Amino acid sequence: MGIPPSRRKSKGSAAERELIHLFWDAGWTAHRIAGSGSSQRPSPDLIAGRSGRVLAIEVKATNDEKKYFPRLEIDELNEYATKTGVEAWVAVKFLRTPWWFLRTKELEQTPSSYVLTKKLCEEKGCPFERLAAIF
Amino acid sequence: MGIPPSRRKSKGSAAERELIHLFWDAGWTAHRIAGSGSSQRPSPDLIAGRSGRVLAIEVKATNDEKKYFPRLEIDELNEYATKTGVEAWVAVKFLRTPWWFLRTKELEQTPSSYVLTKKLCEEKGCPFERLAAIF
Repeated sequence: MGIPPSRRKSKGSAAERELIHLFWDAGWTAHRIAGSGSSQRPSPDLIAGRSGRVLAIEVKATNDEKKYFPRLEIDELNEYATKTGVEAWVAVKFLRTPWWFLRTKELEQTPSSYVLTKKLCEEKGCPFERLAAIF
Repeated sequence: MGIPPSRRKSKGSAAERELIHLFWDAGWTAHRIAGSGSSQRPSPDLIAGRSGRVLAIEVKATNDEKKYFPRLEIDELNEYATKTGVEAWVAVKFLRTPWWFLRTKELEQTPSSYVLTKKLCEEKGCPFERLAAIF
């Protein structure tokens, strides 16, 4: 069953818009990449930048305690980031918590997925304010 | 009279897609920015990158010998590029010529616009192969 794709998509878009506002308010630029998720090329959800530091970001919002990323999604984000020469990050919003950011290399792995749990965020994650303050 | 906005837009999109393919075929990444042209934030048409060199690009295709860019469009591209710390470029395709690239600071100016002519491209422009080969 789960959430219908249309509702999941609108929740994802709302999360991306929220994050874009956060970045601009903190003096960064941030934009959605057109066709992310449907393009045949590896595409991040967002590109954010400030003063030469550029982040390629995959964005998730969830009501659960953990979030799975399909292996291909993260592998393609890493491929995009390596080729472009920018940083690869995931941004996750769990229910009733602020945004957490984690570099893709710090995600836990299962045979078919990457996993991000609240616990891992609390141990290794970066809150927005810290991420946005580093150049 | 001029070209109806819908046809102008589809010509612009086709030009952007053509350029995106060129970049990927040359080993770069390239994507359209979502909402470019309608966003309230300064947005380039394309983001292209390779090995840490990132270009913010405004794209035009025209059947004329010169192309006008509204002042605001270029000022906002410069604002985006400066804030993000990336390079600001325009890419222009005149009828029956290959793509020309020019840094925004090399555009000619009128009181209300920036202008790019075929002649200026031949004097100061960078063809795609040269642009794509520089790191």
